[in-house]
Amino acid sequence: MRLSQYFLPLLKETPSEAQIVSHRYMLRAGMIKQQAAGIYSWLPLGLRALDNVEKIVADELEKAGCVRVLMPTLQPTELWKESGRYDALGKEMLRFKDRADRELLYSPTCEEMIIDIFRSYVKSYKALPLNLYQINWKFRDEVRPRFGVMRGREFLMKDGYSFHTTLDDAKREYSKMYDVYHNIFKRLGLTAIAVSADSGAIGGNLSHEFQVLAETGESQVYYDQRFDDIRDGKLSLSGEEMRGLYAAADELHVPEKCPIPKENLREARGIEVGHIFLLGRKYTDAMGIDVTGPEGAVRVEMGTYGIGVSRLVAAIIEASHDDNGIIWPESVAPFRVGLINLRPGDVNCEEACNLIYNTLTAKEVPILYDDTDERPGGKFASMDLIGTPWQIIVGPKGLERNVVELKSRKTGEKQEVSVESALAKLLG
Amino acid sequence: MRLSQYFLPLLKETPSEAQIVSHRYMLRAGMIKQQAAGIYSWLPLGLRALDNVEKIVADELEKAGCVRVLMPTLQPTELWKESGRYDALGKEMLRFKDRADRELLYSPTCEEMIIDIFRSYVKSYKALPLNLYQINWKFRDEVRPRFGVMRGREFLMKDGYSFHTTLDDAKREYSKMYDVYHNIFKRLGLTAIAVSADSGAIGGNLSHEFQVLAETGESQVYYDQRFDDIRDGKLSLSGEEMRGLYAAADELHVPEKCPIPKENLREARGIEVGHIFLLGRKYTDAMGIDVTGPEGAVRVEMGTYGIGVSRLVAAIIEASHDDNGIIWPESVAPFRVGLINLRPGDVNCEEACNLIYNTLTAKEVPILYDDTDERPGGKFASMDLIGTPWQIIVGPKGLERNVVELKSRKTGEKQEVSVESALAKLLG
Repeated sequence: MRLSQYFLPLLKETPSEAQIVSHRYMLRAGMIKQQAAGIYSWLPLGLRALDNVEKIVADELEKAGCVRVLMPTLQPTELWKESGRYDALGKEMLRFKDRADRELLYSPTCEEMIIDIFRSYVKSYKALPLNLYQINWKFRDEVRPRFGVMRGREFLMKDGYSFHTTLDDAKREYSKMYDVYHNIFKRLGLTAIAVSADSGAIGGNLSHEFQVLAETGESQVYYDQRFDDIRDGKLSLSGEEMRGLYAAADELHVPEKCPIPKENLREARGIEVGHIFLLGRKYTDAMGIDVTGPEGAVRVEMGTYGIGVSRLVAAIIEASHDDNGIIWPESVAPFRVGLINLRPGDVNCEEACNLIYNTLTAKEVPILYDDTDERPGGKFASMDLIGTPWQIIVGPKGLERNVVELKSRKTGEKQEVSVESALAKLLG
Repeated sequence: MRLSQYFLPLLKETPSEAQIVSHRYMLRAGMIKQQAAGIYSWLPLGLRALDNVEKIVADELEKAGCVRVLMPTLQPTELWKESGRYDALGKEMLRFKDRADRELLYSPTCEEMIIDIFRSYVKSYKALPLNLYQINWKFRDEVRPRFGVMRGREFLMKDGYSFHTTLDDAKREYSKMYDVYHNIFKRLGLTAIAVSADSGAIGGNLSHEFQVLAETGESQVYYDQRFDDIRDGKLSLSGEEMRGLYAAADELHVPEKCPIPKENLREARGIEVGHIFLLGRKYTDAMGIDVTGPEGAVRVEMGTYGIGVSRLVAAIIEASHDDNGIIWPESVAPFRVGLINLRPGDVNCEEACNLIYNTLTAKEVPILYDDTDERPGGKFASMDLIGTPWQIIVGPKGLERNVVELKSRKTGEKQEVSVESALAKLLG
């Protein structure tokens, strides 16, 4: 993409309403625009990051055998009366009437509707286990939406639901999803700590929150120091071993009962980016969901698995930035390469830039080419702000010596290399 | 995908509420499920088709230099009061209050919000022209939602908006989008006729509707017979030549003033799948949108361009089906290949099927492998119903002669070929 033909509205000033770094950088980098309290437009750069997160989440789920569906944002309220949550959810659930005076709600989560789909079609135990998921916009009418998309009202969520004939099988799937979630967060460049948590309004027998550590996190978490070792690369554990490590959310951590010695316990702030629940029969009892088994009716056991997709974009920035801006992990970066032409109009610079741009574009490497008349200092600052993992800086003096500058956003390291070497490195 | 691990709830009976063929087949093929009047869940098979349509639409727009954004489904009503459409749109626009008693609406279209984004960031004529688009769910509270996703209330729409400093430049972009739309519909396997149309509630100076001909269409269209020749492959015209052909919607066709002789005029029913509008200054006057030009303020000229993405899935089925089910164009097919194992459990059949399945999966050819215990007749009927363009039928008798059957869903033609030839043909 050539910047001259793109829509990247960077802000010079730090918006005063933004209290946390991800919110500030998302506004300054032209990723989002607030349209109402907790309701955002995603501008081109932000949408590319959001899409990348969504694709990684979907890819790992598909590999794990989950099957994707899409439920509508608006739903009739009848299903929620059936499950008993129509009254339980209160004002966070946005309800209103359509022109025919029928009550609708904007989906805050979809247990009821997925069960409605399930019972319409699945009659036999032979179709189980089944794990269906969707990625779609939800609405929760928070009293105090804040921190940008970190705690928005309209937000993109992955919600998955599994169906089983036995509680043991539901537990097996729960453990599998626990591992899948770790894979997802790892691919997103994050270390998430799965803490035992209260299952709240969703309910069920067992639940884990996946917390990304960050000073601005809203949750207090307690965990085995070995999670730090895993993050720092000193330790590698299997899914089963990780599941054995102690970690608990604030409300479940009782110091006197903590099973690990105090010197091994760490305490930090976390951002909740995922939550898995072993539901058991909470909903299937309320809604009377059976399948026919080999010896008659079997009550269905369930699990449910959520990931905050739009929140993850902010969480990644909280976990990976410096004073100059965002440092995207390569997997999520809206553009992997930023190409800076220091002297547009100069024949050699134009030629080298076009070669780099066309070569990488042909190989489908996402590249943003700053071909504008902005001064070099401004171009450097913008590229650092939007955080492309790699920068290629092309100037007339370097080209006289047949070199361009290749800069790693993460380390700040700059190398003078030939155009061919730069391309080889990025395509390697 | 192995059918035994998929969620494909086919219906044996034709649902009585479905009046048109696309609605019947979408229900029978397990593509959608109604959740309320005009509100649908997209089941796995339907969602794959919807995604494919969306990708083609996005791909052609990106190639044409359009830049993607995403606006929220819920919007504050203030912007609509500014443009004057808060009152104009009536009950089709769903409005309600949040917990803080602020009025919100579910976006039926986004002229106001995209202008709000534009005016927040774009100050100079140098940033123009600019063409921004999104693909997102909209809601229109139709009095009589019907025909499945053809006329739903919650529907997926591509809406694009362009900004210009002169009306001439807006006209140039309008013509460009006219051609891009023809490319999009062609890639979707459709021939769309662009008819001069009334610009209705959107407004503006000039508009064209893109109509796909189908008996069940809700619009009456009049057009130059040469459109039929283009569809039948007898004639090939440039974008400019096509733009010169006569075609008009019912309300704009005046027989006495029709510029082409009666014998060249055709009359048919059409499904509206796209609509482009040369808006001019309708909205920018109402909302006072200027940019600074070389000689002072310039009022911005606009165009707007819509495509009914979810409706297109139904329109494609209306245009391409037979008595046995859907006939997907390859570009849109949820699965390109259906693999039928006539005797699961037979070693040779399993081995051949696994080879075919693994080879095509490794090459990213979307394939649905019917590995279930269903009887052959049922498997044939199901595969015809869901309309995979190619079927590979593997049975023990054929394998004795080293052949499988390769069937084209469109022509019905069957060939006995070796596994290697079948693979070569599908990968070729």
